Order: sequence, then C-alpha cells, then structure tokens
Amino acid sequence: MTKAPSRARPKTVADVARAANVSKATAARVLGGYGVVSDTVRASVTAAAKALDYRPNELARSMTTGRSDIIGVVVGDIENPFFSLAVRGISDAAKAAGFNVILANSGEKIEAEKAAVRLLIGKRVDGLIVTPSESRDITHLRDIHRSGRPLALLDRALPELDVDTVTVDDREAAIRATRVLIDAGHRNIAYVTAVEGNGHEYFDLRQIYTSSVRERIDGFLAACRDAGIDRPERHVRLGATSFEETRRLADELLSSSERPTAILASDSVIALEILRAIRQRGMRIPDDISLITFHDADWTGVTTPPITVVDQPVYALGHTVAELLIRRLKGDIKPPERLVLRTAIINRGSVGPPPVMW
Amino acid sequence: MTKAPSRARPKTVADVARAANVSKATAARVLGGYGVVSDTVRASVTAAAKALDYRPNELARSMTTGRSDIIGVVVGDIENPFFSLAVRGISDAAKAAGFNVILANSGEKIEAEKAAVRLLIGKRVDGLIVTPSESRDITHLRDIHRSGRPLALLDRALPELDVDTVTVDDREAAIRATRVLIDAGHRNIAYVTAVEGNGHEYFDLRQIYTSSVRERIDGFLAACRDAGIDRPERHVRLGATSFEETRRLADELLSSSERPTAILASDSVIALEILRAIRQRGMRIPDDISLITFHDADWTGVTTPPITVVDQPVYALGHTVAELLIRRLKGDIKPPERLVLRTAIINRGSVGPPPVMW
Repeated sequence: MTKAPSRARPKTVADVARAANVSKATAARVLGGYGVVSDTVRASVTAAAKALDYRPNELARSMTTGRSDIIGVVVGDIENPFFSLAVRGISDAAKAAGFNVILANSGEKIEAEKAAVRLLIGKRVDGLIVTPSESRDITHLRDIHRSGRPLALLDRALPELDVDTVTVDDREAAIRATRVLIDAGHRNIAYVTAVEGNGHEYFDLRQIYTSSVRERIDGFLAACRDAGIDRPERHVRLGATSFEETRRLADELLSSSERPTAILASDSVIALEILRAIRQRGMRIPDDISLITFHDADWTGVTTPPITVVDQPVYALGHTVAELLIRRLKGDIKPPERLVLRTAIINRGSVGPPPVMW
Repeated sequence: MTKAPSRARPKTVADVARAANVSKATAARVLGGYGVVSDTVRASVTAAAKALDYRPNELARSMTTGRSDIIGVVVGDIENPFFSLAVRGISDAAKAAGFNVILANSGEKIEAEKAAVRLLIGKRVDGLIVTPSESRDITHLRDIHRSGRPLALLDRALPELDVDTVTVDDREAAIRATRVLIDAGHRNIAYVTAVEGNGHEYFDLRQIYTSSVRERIDGFLAACRDAGIDRPERHVRLGATSFEETRRLADELLSSSERPTAILASDSVIALEILRAIRQRGMRIPDDISLITFHDADWTGVTTPPITVVDQPVYALGHTVAELLIRRLKGDIKPPERLVLRTAIINRGSVGPPPVMW
C-alpha cells in the first residue's frame, strides 16, 4: 500500500507567478486566457502551472466571467422519491442549458435549510431552487433574492416572496382525492400529513406554515364539509415526519374507537408505513379500509391491490422550475411567474365501500 | 407583483475597502477577523460591508483557513434508493463531525462523473466521496488524490487506486443468493445487471469495469459452476441501465425458449421492472418463476408475495466511508483502509421450486 499523500495547500496564481518568475498579473493573464503576453512567457507560465499541479480556482474564474454555470438546489428530503424525481427534472433542464447542479438537503428543518442556502451562496452558485420548509422564517430566501441572485421555489409557494414558483394544484388535488372516497360511501376519512406540529392534532390552518400542506388540508376539509361530514378536522393528523412517528400515528388511528374507514396520505413514504400498519393488523385493503396517497411512487402499482394515487407531474415540476430559473439567469426581467401544474387521480384497487359495522 | 431585482455583481473586499476608504488589506483584516485594526476602522469597514450587502467569499475564507468544511459526494444515480440511503449515512456522519455535504450526480456516465469531480474540486471541497462508474478511466480520481485532497470510494473498489474504500461482500452475496435458488431446485437461473455493455450479452469478466458488478457476476457464475450448471454465462444479462432497457431485456428473457426459472436482479430498480414484466405476462411468483434482488428496497416487503432480498448495510456503507474520509481530513496518515461490510439474505416469499415443464 502506498502512503496517503500529505495534505498540500492548493496552488495559487501567485505560486505559479513565482515559479515562472513573472508578475502575478502576467501569470493571471496566461492562466485566465485573456490579455496579451509573449509566447515565451506563456510557455514558461504554462510549464510552471503544470509542474505545480495548479488548478484554476473556479471562484476566481466566476468572479471574472460573472458566472459559475452552477445551479444550487435545496430540497426537503432527497430520500423521498418525490424529490429525487424532481431533481432529475431539474438536472435534465440544467444540463440542456449548459448548467451543472449541486444539491443540498434540508431534512425539512429550517436551520438546515438556512445553512444549505448559505453554503451554496458561499459557493457562488448562479441561482437557487429551494423547496422552502416553512413560511415563517424566510429572511435567508429574501437575502438571496435581494442579492440579485435568481431564486425559484419548487412545490411550495411563499405568499410574501414574489419569485418564480412552480407548484401543483394541491387544494384541487385533495378535493378530488377526498371525493373519490366520499363517492365510495366513506364519511369517516383521515388525512395524514408530514408537517411538523405540536403533537399530531390539527387545530387550525393558521398553524400550518407550508403552503402545499395547508392547501391540501384546506381541500380535504372543503370536500368533507361539502358532503356534510361533521367535524372532519378531528381526523387530520400532523407530524408524520419519520417512519417511527408515522407508525405511531397510524397505530393510533387504526386502534381508535372512531377508526376511519378510509385514509388519504400526503406522500408515498407515509402511505407505505400506513400500509404496513394496516397489514400488520390483518386488515385488508379495500375491504376493511380504503387508502389513497399523493405521488405515484414505484411501489404503488405493484402491491395487491395496487394503490389509487394522486399523480403529480413531479418530473415536470422540476424541469419547469429549472427552466424558469435559467430564463432569469439569461437576463429575463419579466415579472415572476407562479405556475400551477395539474394533477390527476389514477384509480387502482385500493378504494372500496366502507365496511359494514355491526 | 414586484419587479425582479436587477442582477448585481457580488460585492468584494475591494468594494468594501473603497466604500470605507481604507486599504484592501485593512478591509480584509476586519472582514476576515484577523490582525489588528483600530475600533474606528473596524466600525467603518463593518458599516460599509453591511451597506453593500457584502457576503464573505467562502472560497477566499477557505484559502485562509485551509478548510471549507464541505465534503463533496458524487453518486451514480440519486434516484436509486440505494444511493439516497447511502447519502443519508454520509450526511449523518458529516453532520456529527461538523461538515456539510454537497452532492452531484454522475448518472453512471464517466464524462459526467469527471465533470462532477471537477466541479466539486473547483468549489474547494475538503474531500470527496465517489462511487466510480468504471475502472478504465480514473485519471480524474488520481488527480484528486495527488492534489492532497482525501478521496474515499463508496460501494466500488478500484484495484489501482489505493484510497479508503468501503464496499460490501459482493462476490459472497451473489454466491449466497444464487445458492438459495439452486437449493430450491433451479438450474436455469438468469442474472440481470445494470452495467453498460455492448448489447446485453456477457462474454468475459474482463469486459466489466465496475468492481461490484464484476464481483457479483463472478460469484453468480462460481455458485452455478459449483452446482454443475452448464454454461451459466448464457444467462448473464448486462445493460439494464434504464426502465426501457430493463423492460426490453426482461421481455427477451421471459419469451426465450430457454426461459429461466429464476432471476437474480442486481438492484431493486431492475427487480421492480422485471416484476412488472413477469406480471404483465400473467406469470406468478414463485409458481412460474422465482425472483431475488439485491437491496432491501421499501417495496420488496409489501408485494404479494414479498420478495427475497440481499440486504446490504447501505446506511452503514455511507456512514463508514464518511467516517474514514473525516479521519483523513483530521490529519490521519495511516495507510488506506479497504473495508468490506457483510450482507445478509432476507428470505421472503419469492423463491419456490422451478415449475414442472411438460
């Protein structure tokens, strides 16, 4: 085995200049490929750079060209297939326009989101795409915007931050999914969602600081009330933010005396855990309980029965938000756009009439 | 709607110096928090920085401290749950040690991998973790190593690059999984893997340039030969690199006159597509065909029947490689380690005896 090389300080233009015995300005001209120098000088600077294993400092270069050609992306949870698919949409659009993408994860925590934004800004990305984890604390996002760096929001809107934003029709989607359950005869429907809350109880829309979550709860409640369902709020469950929390919450729901006959899950990670809890109790879908989830995740089509889903245009969401950002990077100064993409229900086999209670 | 702000050039130390009417060196001392300046000068520089919305240039700072506290990670395919789970392992270890992580995707293409490495090096990450997409072209990885920046390899070893490496016991895992099928009575077993090849035919181990893929094929063939199976190579299928390719390949296998009675899939993305192809033909698992896959992906436990898997310690893989890298970043100069983590078979319901052929 060879020894690990000792940690060397990266070589700078000044090091190259010294080795080539020219001024720093001259070395910079050669290394940066601008200005006029003699062939002899060019040759000796190039040789020195090679000997020193000099690597152009991307930041210095970006300070000259004004561009790093990098888009920074901060997503909520890269392990959630929703986000990894959206990131593919972003990457494809970026690549097509000659941009690279670097990615940081917020874990849906506002402090981590701020740190990720600081990190990417510090790395002088040209622009940022963020899925804001909440709307209460957005100073860091305002700062990006104020600095003149384009910012675009993915999946979640911020009413108070007027930047390019691409979301889906969350309220409408929740209404449609809830109606599928109501039309099948359900009156006792639970909605389970991932937002952080004080406990799992829902009190008021004003306690929800993520636009997509709020819109969906609002849609769910509207559809229930429209069908004359009494106090639908009692079956909204917040805080499904980890496997453990989701499992606890599902167990609670399934063992309660007011057990719902149908569940609508706000994402496929939550739905999978609910499915496991349902099966572990020996309950059958849809005979004992119906289930619909947001996001057409890979597994939803291969379970028995396959799961009815709200199909979100996730790839398009990522692709579109990247295109909007790239337009800004190319100098477009039109007013910000707020695009809302359409979702659709894919009816599979997880919805049936409520069980007859004896 | 407000107008998008015009694109402003990021402010530099020189801008702050000019505004505060001090030398650049003095401004740098105040902004960098080193050296001695008077309180008056400090106050005026700070005020100017604030007025100009000056943001410290992370690169310049890292040139001073020698550290950016960032680990760069280049993975093959962030949409593959194997990699997103490994990245969580990396992120958790990094966070615990005070490092941030930025991520770039290679899409398993060597050119994209090189670009990603260049990008992250240019951004002056302290060290890199890479899942090398192949072993033929590793100049870019040698360059990282030579520059004195620590490099660690995740999931795939490079015999010619002696750096910290964490893999799993791929050959052993393939032997054990193949034996499960042999023990159930199968003699006609296919192995389907994702590596790029010239077509889907397998000729020789020397055509495989990814260590994990090569090790697994080697293990599969060894187990088959050990059981006296004739020409097991004929059922090794390469090139399952996309949904479309995997589907084409699965359809080919399932319609061939020498149709295998069991399939071993090299990852869960491939296995899911094979499962879909099996079902679409109205075939039943395990009655008509048996299936085992590498990676205990979320869906494998919820299908009917649930799928037997090779359970890889994916989170630990990421966590361990990050710990090795961080040790280097802290100055450890011990010889590189090559750790091999153990896998296990989780027996579920997708393996049965081969169907009786009439």
